[in-house]
Amino acid sequence: MSRQRVVIVGGGFAGLYTALAIEKALAKEDDIELILVSKENYFVFQPMLPELLSGSIGIMDVVSPLRRLLGRADLHVREVESVDLERQELHAAPGFRPQPHIIHYDHLVLALGAVTDFRGLRGLPEHALPFKNLGDALQLRNHVIHALEEAAIESDPRLRRSLLTFVIAGGGFSGVEVAAELNDFVREVARSYRGLDAGEIRVVLIHSGTRILPEVSEKLALFAERILGRRGVEIRLQTRLDAATGEEAVLKGGERLSTRTLVSTIPSSPHPLLDALDLPKAKNRRLEVDSRLRVCGTENIWALGDAAAVPTPDGGLHPATAQHAIRQAGVAAHNIVAAIRGGEARTFDFKGLGKMGSLGHRCAVAEVFGFQISGFLAWWMWRTIYLMKLPGWGRRLKVATSWTLDVLLPPELVQLKLGGTRGIDREHFEPNQEVFREGDLGDRMYIILTGRVEVVRLRDGEEDRIAELGPGESFGEMALLNKTTRTATVRCVEATDALSLPKGDFAALTTNIPDMRRSFEGLMESRATALGARSRKD
Amino acid sequence: MSRQRVVIVGGGFAGLYTALAIEKALAKEDDIELILVSKENYFVFQPMLPELLSGSIGIMDVVSPLRRLLGRADLHVREVESVDLERQELHAAPGFRPQPHIIHYDHLVLALGAVTDFRGLRGLPEHALPFKNLGDALQLRNHVIHALEEAAIESDPRLRRSLLTFVIAGGGFSGVEVAAELNDFVREVARSYRGLDAGEIRVVLIHSGTRILPEVSEKLALFAERILGRRGVEIRLQTRLDAATGEEAVLKGGERLSTRTLVSTIPSSPHPLLDALDLPKAKNRRLEVDSRLRVCGTENIWALGDAAAVPTPDGGLHPATAQHAIRQAGVAAHNIVAAIRGGEARTFDFKGLGKMGSLGHRCAVAEVFGFQISGFLAWWMWRTIYLMKLPGWGRRLKVATSWTLDVLLPPELVQLKLGGTRGIDREHFEPNQEVFREGDLGDRMYIILTGRVEVVRLRDGEEDRIAELGPGESFGEMALLNKTTRTATVRCVEATDALSLPKGDFAALTTNIPDMRRSFEGLMESRATALGARSRKD
Repeated sequence: MSRQRVVIVGGGFAGLYTALAIEKALAKEDDIELILVSKENYFVFQPMLPELLSGSIGIMDVVSPLRRLLGRADLHVREVESVDLERQELHAAPGFRPQPHIIHYDHLVLALGAVTDFRGLRGLPEHALPFKNLGDALQLRNHVIHALEEAAIESDPRLRRSLLTFVIAGGGFSGVEVAAELNDFVREVARSYRGLDAGEIRVVLIHSGTRILPEVSEKLALFAERILGRRGVEIRLQTRLDAATGEEAVLKGGERLSTRTLVSTIPSSPHPLLDALDLPKAKNRRLEVDSRLRVCGTENIWALGDAAAVPTPDGGLHPATAQHAIRQAGVAAHNIVAAIRGGEARTFDFKGLGKMGSLGHRCAVAEVFGFQISGFLAWWMWRTIYLMKLPGWGRRLKVATSWTLDVLLPPELVQLKLGGTRGIDREHFEPNQEVFREGDLGDRMYIILTGRVEVVRLRDGEEDRIAELGPGESFGEMALLNKTTRTATVRCVEATDALSLPKGDFAALTTNIPDMRRSFEGLMESRATALGARSRKD
Repeated sequence: MSRQRVVIVGGGFAGLYTALAIEKALAKEDDIELILVSKENYFVFQPMLPELLSGSIGIMDVVSPLRRLLGRADLHVREVESVDLERQELHAAPGFRPQPHIIHYDHLVLALGAVTDFRGLRGLPEHALPFKNLGDALQLRNHVIHALEEAAIESDPRLRRSLLTFVIAGGGFSGVEVAAELNDFVREVARSYRGLDAGEIRVVLIHSGTRILPEVSEKLALFAERILGRRGVEIRLQTRLDAATGEEAVLKGGERLSTRTLVSTIPSSPHPLLDALDLPKAKNRRLEVDSRLRVCGTENIWALGDAAAVPTPDGGLHPATAQHAIRQAGVAAHNIVAAIRGGEARTFDFKGLGKMGSLGHRCAVAEVFGFQISGFLAWWMWRTIYLMKLPGWGRRLKVATSWTLDVLLPPELVQLKLGGTRGIDREHFEPNQEVFREGDLGDRMYIILTGRVEVVRLRDGEEDRIAELGPGESFGEMALLNKTTRTATVRCVEATDALSLPKGDFAALTTNIPDMRRSFEGLMESRATALGARSRKD
């Protein structure tokens, strides 16, 4: 009999713990070949990610290399692009060589987790920062430090206030923890910035419900609201984020918050790979599984964690938490091994041990075995549980020591610029928003995708409207070609989406693609003629 | 009398220590306004950067936030783009708002350091990795881990060997330390990769001289060569890097090393901002200063560190090391304060205390006060000196503890993917190199800048030459438009430079710029016709 190959997709709690449980079952036999496919080569302890913001844990304390955790399993660090259910194959993105990477499976475990999906939300894909993985957390931290650095030397009070306003959408555990940690961090480090008034800092948490933390009891939620409020977080209830631009968060009802930092922890959706799969899905777009975690209607496909809609005995769904994922992993592993070797399948049921959320600054709320705990004790429990979950004693000792020493040291405020330069990008603008102003430095040109803009110039203190442009038309290229400042202001008449090209890319393209150069030369000529005619007319 | 403003550009050893020394002189008086302009908001302890590669020190242990080090000085985190000597103004790059940031100065201190400058070297700007700053070190570390991950699942032995070959050009302190740490790291972590044979790993150090480490005595250099050789570093003397492609390092004499990781620590040049400045320069392109560190022919411009050619009393030049920069900073600060307040100027002279270079794995070479030390003792001295230079006791304690605990823990192998996606890019190819192969996945299209390529297809096992293309012509767009694999192989006839556009950018541009779409549609049609004609002809 040939070895059966089990392929697990996803290196989070669900995927990793399934692999570990199958490895355990393999202890004496070698009848199963195990492959874990993960986009990253590390496992992230996701519940602790927000603590990275304030620096209360280090980057390396929140991640563990998957290879060090796995024993017999082979790790493929690749992103899965599609699944061929017919041929039982995964197609992964190419690596150094542009060749498809195909992995055959006998049993497939879909443990892809969830993503923050901004599609269909006005301006959010372009301008809101998600908070889901390690990269998001580091990017947000660096962005916040950048905003502080700029605020410290900005003389325009409007822009300075906007740089010092931080908006977080979503008042569940995730949003509350981000708001709490971000608030702690900016208020603490602001002291190191000469000439930066802590009174100008605003941290705003937006939530659609009548109270934050719907996951816990009202008592704990109100405790959290009080604590956060006292520390300077403004909580806006019964409203939601309606749209975003590079400069504003637009709330339902029309209120606009001027900000350069907008984080949204909602909405959470299943991994986009699932959309393309012809497998049964529940109403929440997650994979429909039976209580044995097998995808309904299949023989050899399993799903668990945030990617699966796991039924409770009374017809509801289990919540998507790390605790549940870890226990589902044990059941899935058992059932897969049973399906291969023969044996009785187990069903999954778990009530949850409790819920915990950090409020930053040595304070948390927790509901454990029916008890409600808040403050330092809850925070201490939270930390201890985390430390126990860390793999290996050496690592635990290191993290515990670093936590102890952190008491001595102020938080780091090193801004690691690793993002490279911004390339060709989409941007969203709301009505009346200025894309750029006469006199600004020209660093990008724009092509309108939808919407309309007007081009205006100041003449003797009066605004002169030169042109109105619509979809397919471009603007801003004159400053790039002539290497000068913007000669006019461009303002949106309607909500506008545009493609923007940085100076360098624009130069490379117009220099090397003759048609593109001719196209823009023609455009420039007609613009110059229009401007000339207008000048003569005056 | 109004306050005089001293502006220091550069946050390395030279700039930071000048600021600190001026702050000390300001202790009681407030007659000088001090501004430090730095591209990054942190100071890097540069001599320790290579140790980051092996993980023998942590990211946060090698940097300190400048704000925490500075007292009275204002920090502007910006990149300086130009200096107007006439108006005594610095022009810095814009921040969140596209407005120029102008800083007036009464005294200007140019402490910009040096950069790795690959300009004019065939293929190096496109394909060699520099090793100068923190970003370079992190990028190299992540790249190396990526190569190991790919090698672990690569079935083609040629590609696997190329992924496991690491080439370092430059046998001075910097190149030797990079080679040593990189070698330690890959050989240590390779054990965590199942199915990766450590025997396949090659680390090659290329040096033009007859021995490495020209900075120290022959005895120490030969010791270093022996140690490195024993640990598996191949040393190639009396040769140099002639060119680079994405797949090969080409040595003088024509030898080609197949590699995906090429690091070059040479050549080191002064900051490009200096090129544009109308100030006297020495033969090595550094700023000419007198022994008081004033730029020759100026009254209020000072230069030190790697940016300056500082004369010795006997007509030579002082070496560009951190030790020298720190001591120059004291002299420059004294002389600037003296120039403002009145007082006697001091001249700079310093013989150097010694030289040290780490060979990795608790081993180093050092020349101190004429003594030659090698092995563990030299390494221990090196570490101790570093620890003493760290600012603050809390920080020192933290780093010392983490070093102690590191003995317990294997090095991290977390690959942080922070680089974002690769945008429009230049690539260099050598003669006979394949840009892509028939059957590859199509992820980029190319526009030839210089050189010639041939387009060939396999027909019944024979190569059929379809076309030859030259400057201004493009290829590879068919696979992008039709979303299929490459229909032909493109091979360079001569050395070729090309602009490459990723799939996403190409789609955005052809969808939204009508001229560009028409241009490529026309091209596609003519290609299809040519292919059709060829097929009929056969």
